[in-house]
Amino acid sequence: MLKANPVTGQTVTLLYVPASMQLPAHFHPGTVIVYTVQGSWRYLEDDWVSKPGDMVYEPAGSKHTPQAVGDEDVVTFNIVEGTLDYIGENGEILARDNWETFLKRYHEHCAAEGIEPIDVTKF
Amino acid sequence: MLKANPVTGQTVTLLYVPASMQLPAHFHPGTVIVYTVQGSWRYLEDDWVSKPGDMVYEPAGSKHTPQAVGDEDVVTFNIVEGTLDYIGENGEILARDNWETFLKRYHEHCAAEGIEPIDVTKF
Amino acid sequence: MLKANPVTGQTVTLLYVPASMQLPAHFHPGTVIVYTVQGSWRYLEDDWVSKPGDMVYEPAGSKHTPQAVGDEDVVTFNIVEGTLDYIGENGEILARDNWETFLKRYHEHCAAEGIEPIDVTKF
Amino acid sequence: MLKANPVTGQTVTLLYVPASMQLPAHFHPGTVIVYTVQGSWRYLEDDWVSKPGDMVYEPAGSKHTPQAVGDEDVVTFNIVEGTLDYIGENGEILARDNWETFLKRYHEHCAAEGIEPIDVTKF
Repeated sequence: MLKANPVTGQTVTLLYVPASMQLPAHFHPGTVIVYTVQGSWRYLEDDWVSKPGDMVYEPAGSKHTPQAVGDEDVVTFNIVEGTLDYIGENGEILARDNWETFLKRYHEHCAAEGIEPIDVTKF
Repeated sequence: MLKANPVTGQTVTLLYVPASMQLPAHFHPGTVIVYTVQGSWRYLEDDWVSKPGDMVYEPAGSKHTPQAVGDEDVVTFNIVEGTLDYIGENGEILARDNWETFLKRYHEHCAAEGIEPIDVTKF
Repeated sequence: MLKANPVTGQTVTLLYVPASMQLPAHFHPGTVIVYTVQGSWRYLEDDWVSKPGDMVYEPAGSKHTPQAVGDEDVVTFNIVEGTLDYIGENGEILARDNWETFLKRYHEHCAAEGIEPIDVTKF
Repeated sequence: MLKANPVTGQTVTLLYVPASMQLPAHFHPGTVIVYTVQGSWRYLEDDWVSKPGDMVYEPAGSKHTPQAVGDEDVVTFNIVEGTLDYIGENGEILARDNWETFLKRYHEHCAAEGIEPIDVTKF
């Protein structure tokens, strides 16, 4: 968690995904920019594979299921506007992440690890 | 429907609400700006009443139930980033509107009324 | 001055322009949304006239010279991303307004009129 | 040049700066997000040095003079809203870059190198 803007709902994060892990299918009401730092990954719905140095720009309203590809753990740098809605097989919304839930999880992580959290909502 | 941006998900709309009508409770993943042109309205969750010339700015992640107040029909000018998610009593998402559904409804309305639609996605 | 976002640079304002007044030519690095509340106005560079209920959406990078049209004072509701750069005949930048200068002028106005200012940067 | 949005003025770029090079002082009307991919750099105005994996978030209205630090060429991933205005010693604006000038330079570069340009304004 690098930044969370409580006004606009924008989050800036570094995401670590273990090799070969598949993330749940989800929907984004706003735009998503993903820059691949390490490893390879794809969306199950598409043909391309994103590699280090590649950028993916998803317009508002995208749905996809990210999957790590290959033996290397994946690291991506992400700028997301609004929420990330986990969806079921019929498109129904199962759960939702946004700046508030990410922030809560960041604070829980810091507490568990004995790390002093930074105020990521300060600009 | 005045503008719909398929990249960012932003919509610019004029909303007409008959006097005393209550709209369904909903959630916004992004920001909402509402300028009141005519009539009075409120959110059931809040104490204030918005009147002509007033502006309401909702940060990302707001939930509310708009209700027209008084005898006059309400007209508002709205700029919404992302979706409008209709929610049930337990916060579950019942349905969702965004630039795509608004655009579809605009085209249906134009077809029904014999109006030539404008390309509101062109800037 | 209704809102000023020190992070994104967005401002939300109501602008009053006396009948027939012409504003200086200027450039906008970001988007501009103008909703006309009262009176009529135009850009010298364009053919249309904006009337109450009309909306103008200017993509990033627009240049124009607003002018009030007719006998009525003009009131517009404006959402501007970034600055407003006053430009000379050869496109050179003469001066600049943004959330900081608007905010300063709002506080000066309040001080002069004995009005208690609202914190327009709070969301 | 990865993306340029002609509506919002947002640009997404990868910037290569040779080791030890200093870029001109400039002003940003909108927000700037910089993720360091390779090498180290700093703003002359600040004390910190940005290294690979670091992120810098500049609110709207920032002024700075970037300088590559150390022996390695610098690569950054950048998301900029609006323009980049080169400023002189007294804050006067000397020149300006935005999505249009970046796009023009991208096409000139492709023409010079015999590369088929991608439509970076398509989302």
